[in-house]
Amino acid sequence: MTSHIEQSAVTVLGLGPMGRALSSAFLDAGLRTTVWNRTPGKDRELVERGAVGARSPEEAVAASRLTVVCVVNYDAADAVVRRGAVTDALKGRTVVNLTADTPDRARDTAAWAAEHGIGYLDGAIMTPTTTIGTPAGVFLHSGPEALYREHRPVLDALGGTHTHLGEDVGRAAAYDIALLDIFWTAMAGYAHALAVARAEGVSARELAPFAKGIGAILPPIFELGADDVDSGRFSGEDNPITSAVSSMAHIVHTSEAHGIDASVMRAAEGLARRAIGRGHGTDGFLRITEIMNPR
Amino acid sequence: MTSHIEQSAVTVLGLGPMGRALSSAFLDAGLRTTVWNRTPGKDRELVERGAVGARSPEEAVAASRLTVVCVVNYDAADAVVRRGAVTDALKGRTVVNLTADTPDRARDTAAWAAEHGIGYLDGAIMTPTTTIGTPAGVFLHSGPEALYREHRPVLDALGGTHTHLGEDVGRAAAYDIALLDIFWTAMAGYAHALAVARAEGVSARELAPFAKGIGAILPPIFELGADDVDSGRFSGEDNPITSAVSSMAHIVHTSEAHGIDASVMRAAEGLARRAIGRGHGTDGFLRITEIMNPR
Repeated sequence: MTSHIEQSAVTVLGLGPMGRALSSAFLDAGLRTTVWNRTPGKDRELVERGAVGARSPEEAVAASRLTVVCVVNYDAADAVVRRGAVTDALKGRTVVNLTADTPDRARDTAAWAAEHGIGYLDGAIMTPTTTIGTPAGVFLHSGPEALYREHRPVLDALGGTHTHLGEDVGRAAAYDIALLDIFWTAMAGYAHALAVARAEGVSARELAPFAKGIGAILPPIFELGADDVDSGRFSGEDNPITSAVSSMAHIVHTSEAHGIDASVMRAAEGLARRAIGRGHGTDGFLRITEIMNPR
Repeated sequence: MTSHIEQSAVTVLGLGPMGRALSSAFLDAGLRTTVWNRTPGKDRELVERGAVGARSPEEAVAASRLTVVCVVNYDAADAVVRRGAVTDALKGRTVVNLTADTPDRARDTAAWAAEHGIGYLDGAIMTPTTTIGTPAGVFLHSGPEALYREHRPVLDALGGTHTHLGEDVGRAAAYDIALLDIFWTAMAGYAHALAVARAEGVSARELAPFAKGIGAILPPIFELGADDVDSGRFSGEDNPITSAVSSMAHIVHTSEAHGIDASVMRAAEGLARRAIGRGHGTDGFLRITEIMNPR
């Protein structure tokens, strides 16, 4: 192992689009960056820009005190780090796992790390690859706060906003899951809206300005709704669930009359109707949070 | 019938929260406003402010050249206007129906109106009652353009933005359906996210700032996606459907491991997996518009 590898400040395992963006930001910040990817050749551009291309994951992690992991999921992460030589090389060092997966997988990996004397922080990247290294990036972290503070200077090289959510190592993944839930459900709604609009002779381009208007009213409604859910008081004043299901039924009807799958809206309507059936018809729509989780 | 009723500029049928807001805006604009509601007593405050409270719907519609209808749905609208005395009184006058329902119901009502010599415009109100009479209101209209131009000065008293979407009278309802589809699906996603977050020990108040961030990134993504859908090219470059289903599976797993209903996300994931199964795994997520509507 050469001395320039030993001086590396950070190692990145995984060179998919996000791993490459992370490595690139570290390089831009002037950090000595060691990279490795399971499939060879992905490091070419980074090495040309000054990154050290490690020949193996154990060599890669041995080169830095901090290793950032960013692969497709924790099965892929485990396949790299939970192997004798790599685990041994990580002892006494720190892993920041920015791979997306579930909170239980994050906690399981933290337990494995503790068992092997490896410092472990779990994180989530909430913004696209293009935001990495810019002020627009949003990073969530969880795990031991002292460890977070220690490595924060290196993480800051990624730009954007970094938030430590707490010592429970599963929190970053929990936020990630919840936020992706909002995102992908909304995208499914948009896709369905475009399918129904097209069947009615309305192009996506025609609908888009109004769709953007709907997107724009969501943040303040999310804000107001948060109080409802935390307090368990779901005020439905001007917009009770009974009014929501009326719209939902119109959507399902119009969709299916055109032969268009309405399974997503049918599921949502079912939850709202169950809330009404339990006597909550005058409540606001977010009452369905309690229908979904009867505990 | 007294002369002050004959001079009225506009009649409003239906005095739910939205009907009252519309009437209030007409009064604020100085228009002579006649109001009627199936359940008596709802007109009290408006009459105190100068509205004329009609004793019957036929008296109400006879009082103005333009009648605005805003009730819960078209069944309720039909129960009022498609009765001999009211239909007779509407002959030669114009109805603007701002009731929410489906495009086919709008077209059916337009056919009934034509049969009885009644001018008919269909409309949709895309913003809450609190926006009525303010610049924030968004109104969509469809039907004969000449009729729309003729009554536009009265409609302008409602404030906000008015858009005429075309001569096909079903277009306002089609836009309405599509936009409510986006809205209620996104709200279902938010509700589910809050349920999962709570099970993970994350309060709605803690999640809200990040949820708002997700809401804020939707409008530009809607904009970009519109081109994909109209062109039939679904570029999945940095965010292919295969990556979306990975997130979706994490959401479903975490939800159900907590005993939380994941039916909405399961339906969305199913559509995405079918798109992959048809060979579109490297496409963007909006490819599911074509899975939903195979025609």
